[in-house]
Amino acid sequence: MASTPSLEKLTALLRRLPGIGPRSAQRLALDLLLRKRELMPALAEALLQAHQAIRHCQRCNNLCEAELCSLCAGGHRDQSQLCVVESPADLLAMEAAGVYRGEYFVLLGHLSPLDGIGPEALHLDLLARRLAEAGLQEVIFATNSTLEGEATAQFIASLIPPGLRVSRIARGIPMGGELEYLDRQTLGRALQGRSALDW
Amino acid sequence: MASTPSLEKLTALLRRLPGIGPRSAQRLALDLLLRKRELMPALAEALLQAHQAIRHCQRCNNLCEAELCSLCAGGHRDQSQLCVVESPADLLAMEAAGVYRGEYFVLLGHLSPLDGIGPEALHLDLLARRLAEAGLQEVIFATNSTLEGEATAQFIASLIPPGLRVSRIARGIPMGGELEYLDRQTLGRALQGRSALDW
Repeated sequence: MASTPSLEKLTALLRRLPGIGPRSAQRLALDLLLRKRELMPALAEALLQAHQAIRHCQRCNNLCEAELCSLCAGGHRDQSQLCVVESPADLLAMEAAGVYRGEYFVLLGHLSPLDGIGPEALHLDLLARRLAEAGLQEVIFATNSTLEGEATAQFIASLIPPGLRVSRIARGIPMGGELEYLDRQTLGRALQGRSALDW
Repeated sequence: MASTPSLEKLTALLRRLPGIGPRSAQRLALDLLLRKRELMPALAEALLQAHQAIRHCQRCNNLCEAELCSLCAGGHRDQSQLCVVESPADLLAMEAAGVYRGEYFVLLGHLSPLDGIGPEALHLDLLARRLAEAGLQEVIFATNSTLEGEATAQFIASLIPPGLRVSRIARGIPMGGELEYLDRQTLGRALQGRSALDW
């Protein structure tokens, strides 16, 4: 064997990360050992620290290191709007865009009957508690524009108590999108969702 | 801030790995936290273990966890042939191919004057010790077929004591290669290195 036990072990674990195949795993391990050795203890420390410290916000399910995430604890967001997203990554994307001032609820998943993922995976009891809070006026679904995302939004929308406005972020052609290269569904949705020219 | 300090830290460190951009780093960190939490302590442990245990073979420079690597210590390889490669990854590729029974020397780099990498980076003193060992008959250069790899092979070849056979692995069209898609240099080399049909 030309490799070593510790190298094999490290490579095998790196391979379990998403998008990392056997080649990439070996390349990562060797790069760490040969060129970035000082990174190894630091990365180990960061993994343990994140593993120990990070949990879910008791109110919105976002990742946090306390009882509540910084968005829920800060009290500086518009509590009348609640944006429902599938994952913390989606929440981060919305925040990075800087286009939304309301609060979030993170489902941590989506309905996918084929994969055996039903409503019990969606933390609906936590969502129900949030929906019951005073001051909420609108629930905005920002689940992915996939079959699962759409089904999830529709299912949850059916559970929302009357009196709340329920909306879905628009589906249509993306900025910079060229009609020539867009698929049928996107064009269909864009046409369906057309709005009056108001300038 | 919608993220957390531990998550930011982990993402920043993952970003320093080769081929991992900001998006991938975030995806890796979130995937670990949301879906592969049990992997985090294991990966931390493997990083620390590899960092502590892995060093270079005192004879051939390959990665190992003892004085000598398993190939040098095993004594079951043909000591009359020495294959010179640039990196442990190249050695592993040769071993995976299972086509070579001799020993190796790992340069841990290549000459690259433009990047300020000169002969001092190539562990030539260790190579000199290996070349002086009794029983060696042939040195086979298997450095990459790049400008740097070729220059490195030529430079080291010029230092090899007389009496040893010196060779270079063949350059030509790869198996399955279609002439139509190969570059000029490859075709030129393949023509230059043609051999008599002997069947």
